[in-house]
Amino acid sequence: MAADPILVIGGGPAGLAAARGAAEVGSDVILVEQRDRLGGTPISAGYSGFTPFFKDAESTMNEMAASASSHPRVTTHLETTVRALTGAAGDFTVTLDRAGSGEERVRVGGIVIATGFDHFDPGKATQMYGYYEFPDVITLVDAERMLKAKTFVRPSTGQPPERVCFVQCVGSRDRRIGNEYCSKVCCGVATKEAIEIREMLPDCRVTIFYIDMRMYGFWENQLYWKAQEQSKVTFIRGVITEILPKNGRLVVKGEDTTMGRPVEVPMDVVVLSVGMVPSKGTIEVGKVLGVLQEKHGFIETPGAPLDTVSTSVPGIYVAGAAAGPKDLEDSVSMAGLAAMKAVAAARQAPAPVA
Amino acid sequence: MAADPILVIGGGPAGLAAARGAAEVGSDVILVEQRDRLGGTPISAGYSGFTPFFKDAESTMNEMAASASSHPRVTTHLETTVRALTGAAGDFTVTLDRAGSGEERVRVGGIVIATGFDHFDPGKATQMYGYYEFPDVITLVDAERMLKAKTFVRPSTGQPPERVCFVQCVGSRDRRIGNEYCSKVCCGVATKEAIEIREMLPDCRVTIFYIDMRMYGFWENQLYWKAQEQSKVTFIRGVITEILPKNGRLVVKGEDTTMGRPVEVPMDVVVLSVGMVPSKGTIEVGKVLGVLQEKHGFIETPGAPLDTVSTSVPGIYVAGAAAGPKDLEDSVSMAGLAAMKAVAAARQAPAPVA
Repeated sequence: MAADPILVIGGGPAGLAAARGAAEVGSDVILVEQRDRLGGTPISAGYSGFTPFFKDAESTMNEMAASASSHPRVTTHLETTVRALTGAAGDFTVTLDRAGSGEERVRVGGIVIATGFDHFDPGKATQMYGYYEFPDVITLVDAERMLKAKTFVRPSTGQPPERVCFVQCVGSRDRRIGNEYCSKVCCGVATKEAIEIREMLPDCRVTIFYIDMRMYGFWENQLYWKAQEQSKVTFIRGVITEILPKNGRLVVKGEDTTMGRPVEVPMDVVVLSVGMVPSKGTIEVGKVLGVLQEKHGFIETPGAPLDTVSTSVPGIYVAGAAAGPKDLEDSVSMAGLAAMKAVAAARQAPAPVA
Repeated sequence: MAADPILVIGGGPAGLAAARGAAEVGSDVILVEQRDRLGGTPISAGYSGFTPFFKDAESTMNEMAASASSHPRVTTHLETTVRALTGAAGDFTVTLDRAGSGEERVRVGGIVIATGFDHFDPGKATQMYGYYEFPDVITLVDAERMLKAKTFVRPSTGQPPERVCFVQCVGSRDRRIGNEYCSKVCCGVATKEAIEIREMLPDCRVTIFYIDMRMYGFWENQLYWKAQEQSKVTFIRGVITEILPKNGRLVVKGEDTTMGRPVEVPMDVVVLSVGMVPSKGTIEVGKVLGVLQEKHGFIETPGAPLDTVSTSVPGIYVAGAAAGPKDLEDSVSMAGLAAMKAVAAARQAPAPVA
């Protein structure tokens, strides 16, 4: 008797990797995505290129989506959310709400939560960076969209900027708003974007203001050295406290902590490196499935560091940024482990009643 | 007809997770380890506790080893190395060299390389830190061994130190020796050890000299805030250029780059935060299996970031620090993906001739 399928919730990088992987080891997979297409945040937010290799985000995600959804063992339901759960590992019954066809119950042996993150809303930062006041204050995501469109301009004028800066840790490492954690990817993403801006606009000066540049592992070679030496991006360790309009530009004020002196420099575009917060989908799915969530709403993994994917409920696993700040490599690696454990849960459980 | 087993090379965290995972989805596994026991570097190097939760390393690895090797689908060969490879994905023939029983050929459908890393030899650092000259200059690994033995002392006197410092990035981010990469885990490990030293020796002052503190993700909460606020560890952004003996202590010289002034402080113990280099096993196995290795000898993963484990040879995958600097979470997550892909390779290939 065949084991029940596994359910993968979320069609971004982690969910697609989990679905494809489980199918390749012979498990049937039900893949549900609340949006009307697969690809996750890289598609919905309009990412340009992936960190660290600048790989085109849209075509890469389309390939991943096709690879997962075209597998004969994978059944994909778009515009579908998870409403309820009963049963236990190896024999769950999940109620899905499918746009156009209403509620439907499915039996699954294991579950992978891959519901991702949202970008931090810079209006909630402790520092008043004026995101909602000044059109030339944008986020990493806004910058991605422009880079994808191959036109990096000052939003207020439509003209190419002469000076651009990035302000790191907006919504991360900020205890006053309760986000003490580091969002892990923003140093890499900002540096990748800085390199892209310099390639697109060779006369534009690009500066990154940071607390610690967290270019862990090989990102050091792939991005940090490249940005400094080839792209001449300036990295300044410092704290930016204010962004104010002046003479048609923005003045960025703060402190250069290495030089021990105040910074006050005019900029045409300021990019806020917004961090990760749990997505609404992550918070909701966590509640529906009854798994423990840490205080911000990310899904808890009590077995970490040696089990990165098991949640507090046997048979339910998590992959990617639903479990906290994760980079793409983390997400697809976790997807492999989560899918494998979900398949094992489905197979090792008592065979369901036919 | 059953698929061929998969071969997992290396019995550390990544290899054990891969072996157990593959067995749980129904694959037979041959697990080979060159040492005479399982557990990998955490055991052979005598780690005390794991980053970030201080989980006891020896008992944790023993549990992982038992969990993998006790599975009926896992066959473990200790004191065994890989000598040769023929065939292709789904139908490899691997020559093993087993201590006591000589060479043996096995047929496997897929392979997971989990051969790990070595600790950087501080004698090879650009800066002359005196590791081989001054007994009170030790490494992160020496410190782990003392912490495991519950006795943190000055090696030269056997007495508890009053002042201890960590020097980060020894052998990492150092282009002059060719290790440009960041070793990823040393910031976390040093901070974990600093907390442990402060708990063991409440009167000992502990300082960490760093370039960037890379406490990515939740390590920020789990270690960095804790070290500063609860354990009163001092973090100084600076560059240490010399360590010299003076009046029976060590004098650490360099620059506090935040304060913009020279540092010259006496210390009883200096801990060099040595980074990761490819293990000899990784370099050798890479050659025997014919997979591409990057210039330092780590195994290449050409599909990164969206495929973290596929090597240049179909059917051969890599997990953990054999692929570059990885933390424990990376290692076990990659193990899941690598094992799943290896199982899929074994199953999807043409069935072997009986």
